[in-house]
Amino acid sequence: MSLETALPSPRILLGPGPSSVSPRVLEALGRNPIGYLDPELFTLLDELRADLRTLFGTKNDFTIPLTGTGMAGMECSFVNLIEPGDNVVIGVNGFFGGRMVEICKRLGANVTVVDATWGQIIEPGKFYDAVRSLESVKLVAVVHAETSTGVRQPLEPIAEITHDRGALFVVDAVTSLGGIPVNIDECDVDVCYSGTQKCVGAPPGLSPISVSDAAFAVSKARKSAVPNWYYDWQLLRNYYDAPHAYHHTVPVNLLFALREALSEIVDEGLEARYKRHRDVSAQLMTGLAKLGIQPFANPEYRLPTLNSVVIPESVQDEVAVRKRLLYEFGLEIGGGLGELKGKIWRIGTMGASATRRNVALLLIALEHILN
Amino acid sequence: MSLETALPSPRILLGPGPSSVSPRVLEALGRNPIGYLDPELFTLLDELRADLRTLFGTKNDFTIPLTGTGMAGMECSFVNLIEPGDNVVIGVNGFFGGRMVEICKRLGANVTVVDATWGQIIEPGKFYDAVRSLESVKLVAVVHAETSTGVRQPLEPIAEITHDRGALFVVDAVTSLGGIPVNIDECDVDVCYSGTQKCVGAPPGLSPISVSDAAFAVSKARKSAVPNWYYDWQLLRNYYDAPHAYHHTVPVNLLFALREALSEIVDEGLEARYKRHRDVSAQLMTGLAKLGIQPFANPEYRLPTLNSVVIPESVQDEVAVRKRLLYEFGLEIGGGLGELKGKIWRIGTMGASATRRNVALLLIALEHILN
Repeated sequence: MSLETALPSPRILLGPGPSSVSPRVLEALGRNPIGYLDPELFTLLDELRADLRTLFGTKNDFTIPLTGTGMAGMECSFVNLIEPGDNVVIGVNGFFGGRMVEICKRLGANVTVVDATWGQIIEPGKFYDAVRSLESVKLVAVVHAETSTGVRQPLEPIAEITHDRGALFVVDAVTSLGGIPVNIDECDVDVCYSGTQKCVGAPPGLSPISVSDAAFAVSKARKSAVPNWYYDWQLLRNYYDAPHAYHHTVPVNLLFALREALSEIVDEGLEARYKRHRDVSAQLMTGLAKLGIQPFANPEYRLPTLNSVVIPESVQDEVAVRKRLLYEFGLEIGGGLGELKGKIWRIGTMGASATRRNVALLLIALEHILN
Repeated sequence: MSLETALPSPRILLGPGPSSVSPRVLEALGRNPIGYLDPELFTLLDELRADLRTLFGTKNDFTIPLTGTGMAGMECSFVNLIEPGDNVVIGVNGFFGGRMVEICKRLGANVTVVDATWGQIIEPGKFYDAVRSLESVKLVAVVHAETSTGVRQPLEPIAEITHDRGALFVVDAVTSLGGIPVNIDECDVDVCYSGTQKCVGAPPGLSPISVSDAAFAVSKARKSAVPNWYYDWQLLRNYYDAPHAYHHTVPVNLLFALREALSEIVDEGLEARYKRHRDVSAQLMTGLAKLGIQPFANPEYRLPTLNSVVIPESVQDEVAVRKRLLYEFGLEIGGGLGELKGKIWRIGTMGASATRRNVALLLIALEHILN
């Protein structure tokens, strides 16, 4: 008879996600499951969806915890809207903008890329020029918080340009939701998706997504069926709303955990939570500056949730540094993605990981390794 | 400050899934998460994938715990293989065969349906006639264990007919894997998917899937890109195998739980586990017969995992019976799906739910309510 599986080593997760999860949320995760048609589950889902609306800053009825990770939210957003031949405009100033392009192309869209150097924001004027150059535009999409660069893209000017052209505005908030204000109604965003494992404080496996009535109507008016049964909005809506028609077996334990994480957010208060993320990030950057480590992202648009920093020239082997952090101290930080591989580190201070203690531990460990 | 979220009421899950989960698996579920590139995670995934191969009865290298539920496994299987205009043959003798048709149509396939009355198996001769009538056939698909009817479809004859025609054989094993033998290599199945929340004994949210080299090669030789980035086999393979390229943030807590559930299966032994499912199902059916409740499925092909039974004529309001079971005794059983709504009950005896105690409780509660 084999022994039980090995316990994972204790980790302090300060990478690009997942973040560490609080004991309270982990306790909820491990509760006994209930059925996907249990009346108690629908009560839980209604409460959870209400809290998600608060977090997104929206009144959108169709706001749900999609089964799947943040990337599932991206797939789901585009597959419901795009039909072959549609013109779409996508902002690319990092790795995840590039993924939007890839998904939209696979769905048969004509993609116009609006780009900027990684680490910088994309100037709204570029979106203006792009949408003006096209006969019609189905949607404009942008990443709010680029996990690959640590840059926050201002949304309002792009929303205005998008809606003036009669298009829908799709926003990736994977690394912002729960860590900095998102406020999609105020910013006039039509579709916004995120993940639970970063600033929201729950384990990975769910993608909060919110869809405006206008976007939902565009999807309903498609000529062709959504080529993805699993992520079809209308089918999902028939389950999450009455008549609660069976669609798939929702991951009830992840829902327990997300419900608890959202309850934690309510307890902390949104403003206090955003302030905590700002304070802890400031503590980190101050400490790193003393070690000669400088921010990578444009300071004006630097995210407090995902801190990208330039690897000092004195570091010969950046992978070895991260390995020592992990194996000697149980501290995880992230390397660069795509063209930034080997050039930057990405240090997440998100959700339950965003504490003064964690940053203090990381700073002394880094000092120990680098000196 | 709000209180912590309400604890779910204790439930004994004897519906069509999810099943109850053992304390050992729930403990693993609630462990502290680790990162998606943590070397410990890849060790865990390698062990987990080896155990999944044993469970599927396969040597297929590409055997993974797909992020998503059983229905995600269905979506993933078809979207990687089907290109618009492909001919596919699908067996429909229940609700889930119908879903296969729906998904394949959305992907642009020409679907030939081979059907049988719900509750019966589909005769292999019907598949023979269907594949012979077509100029070419991309794949043949069938549900091994129909959750809507409780019928086990024999696979071998269909596999032979399929491969004689040069097509791929796709099998849904959502309600069989872990409860009755699946043995996909022996049965010559090319693609097989399941869920974790039924006979495997883990919470919902993952879909074990196994793909033969032949099927993988067909997908790689497509003319068009897979129109689903999230479930593209090649991209998934690049993550699960070396070089472990980032794809999405895998739901690490669900992986902890699945690893533990598979370890439990190894401890119990496959044969002992299948016998437990048979014994508990026999106990249930014997007890139900004493209450005048008869099996719905053809006895020769009756599943021991999902027991479908005809609702007695004496029952005026079957929904009320299920509500009383749930609210008074915490016992969940399922109603009929589709055309069987109101006509049958579906009683799952799967995974950790398949115990003599649970069946004894259900029988006395049913007797109490019905008499």
